[in-house]
Amino acid sequence: MNLLSQRRVFDGWLKRYMHHSDCLNCDMIFAIYLPPQAETQSVPVLYWLSGLTCTDENFMQKAGAQRVAAELGIAIVCPDTSPRGTDLPGEHDSYDFGSGAGFYLNATQAPWNQHYNMYDYVLDELPQLIKTHFLVTDRCSISGHSMGGHGALTIALKNPDRYGSVSAFSPICHPTQCPWGEKIFSIYLGNDKRNWEQYDASLLVSSSATATTKLPLLVDQGEADEFLIEQLQPSALKQACDEANYPLTLRLQPNYDHSYFFIASFIEEHLRYHAKALLS
Amino acid sequence: MNLLSQRRVFDGWLKRYMHHSDCLNCDMIFAIYLPPQAETQSVPVLYWLSGLTCTDENFMQKAGAQRVAAELGIAIVCPDTSPRGTDLPGEHDSYDFGSGAGFYLNATQAPWNQHYNMYDYVLDELPQLIKTHFLVTDRCSISGHSMGGHGALTIALKNPDRYGSVSAFSPICHPTQCPWGEKIFSIYLGNDKRNWEQYDASLLVSSSATATTKLPLLVDQGEADEFLIEQLQPSALKQACDEANYPLTLRLQPNYDHSYFFIASFIEEHLRYHAKALLS
Repeated sequence: MNLLSQRRVFDGWLKRYMHHSDCLNCDMIFAIYLPPQAETQSVPVLYWLSGLTCTDENFMQKAGAQRVAAELGIAIVCPDTSPRGTDLPGEHDSYDFGSGAGFYLNATQAPWNQHYNMYDYVLDELPQLIKTHFLVTDRCSISGHSMGGHGALTIALKNPDRYGSVSAFSPICHPTQCPWGEKIFSIYLGNDKRNWEQYDASLLVSSSATATTKLPLLVDQGEADEFLIEQLQPSALKQACDEANYPLTLRLQPNYDHSYFFIASFIEEHLRYHAKALLS
Repeated sequence: MNLLSQRRVFDGWLKRYMHHSDCLNCDMIFAIYLPPQAETQSVPVLYWLSGLTCTDENFMQKAGAQRVAAELGIAIVCPDTSPRGTDLPGEHDSYDFGSGAGFYLNATQAPWNQHYNMYDYVLDELPQLIKTHFLVTDRCSISGHSMGGHGALTIALKNPDRYGSVSAFSPICHPTQCPWGEKIFSIYLGNDKRNWEQYDASLLVSSSATATTKLPLLVDQGEADEFLIEQLQPSALKQACDEANYPLTLRLQPNYDHSYFFIASFIEEHLRYHAKALLS
């Protein structure tokens, strides 16, 4: 694991590392913010999953999260949003698939299945790496934005015992029924739509009736978000939660859009929400 | 004045405008953050001057300042860092002069003197525009980073009655004696170094013995800043202030570098410092 940079932020350290990922079959970069408390004790971890076109850097630069993480004593880990450096055919041609658009799933279709296994990377390989190299507790939570909100919700819904809490900003709530999801899923997962269902938060909620652990969902959504109706569809998630009696706090925030300014405005509330689960 | 965009941030509005600048003789973009209080009352203004290569956007995206500005009820105005769209010979060839490197002075040398009058723009034209179009009080303060820290210090030192307070992050303190300043000043101001002195904070302090108003200077400087010794030289400013008995609070912050992560870590303290002058 190679340290690429380290910067002092709110008396903690923001570090970027490159490492070889076995499940992605390529070199990957991630960022970790270590709060001041991490110099003397183990700290819990919040995993943040970013949206289309992002890298490990956007959240760390724009969300203003380190201030609160430093106060609470929580580490934040930001993975990249897709495998990198693989140069598959067409991989860099479009903002909404290929590089920058891993969608936090395990691809089944060639050639994507050689690398595009971000689900396994985020759920298993990266947390194992973090535990090996940093003084962190066993507790972690997960959050994300847009495509990363979809990732946070679906990964937590499928693995509720692995996370203390989950939240999302502007998540893609029903990707089997929106243009971004339909495009991505047909390429990465093939045309049999039954194979798509395990990566759709609304459908996972619908099939959760017998689940023993129901991790509550906290979702913030801007009402002036340009992707709200066509791509994000929080109403589908709400309907699924209502019908399945699944705990959801969906907050529609007037005038806010899809940008990091929206995330910055509410990240403190999300961090304090996760702190309840991580530090109790 | 054309509104380019508006985004909700911490229950206020971040707006970007394009307008024609008479003193720069080109179209310019600036950003203004209007806190929630601005919907019902006049608010004071903090002018923020950014560093080399920046635009009106860097500070607004990365400093995390809107949270505190929204709490305090202070507007923030970020001008661009140079004239734009003028395409003078060589203007875009180098990161440290021409576009993105206006240095907050009035150029005297052709062809730069046709456009490069950022001193007049920041001191007079932009504040007049702000007063005309927004509900702001007569009180304002000024701050900035690196080249913009130089701008904030020199503009405030030359016009102490125009600002309630001044602060700077990692300012270029003695530009007549550093590579960035020597290059810029010779191009914009010519080779007679006497004409450079009015844009050097350390020299302005040295010649301030008879000034009736001595605006205290607050300066934060990271000790791990890669430009500290060769370009920024806070020790020169400190020596000048000591010798002239000029009020300076210079804080050397261990481990911090030149990045916006440093600014984000201390911007709240600067905003509360300015609030004392702006809201008292």
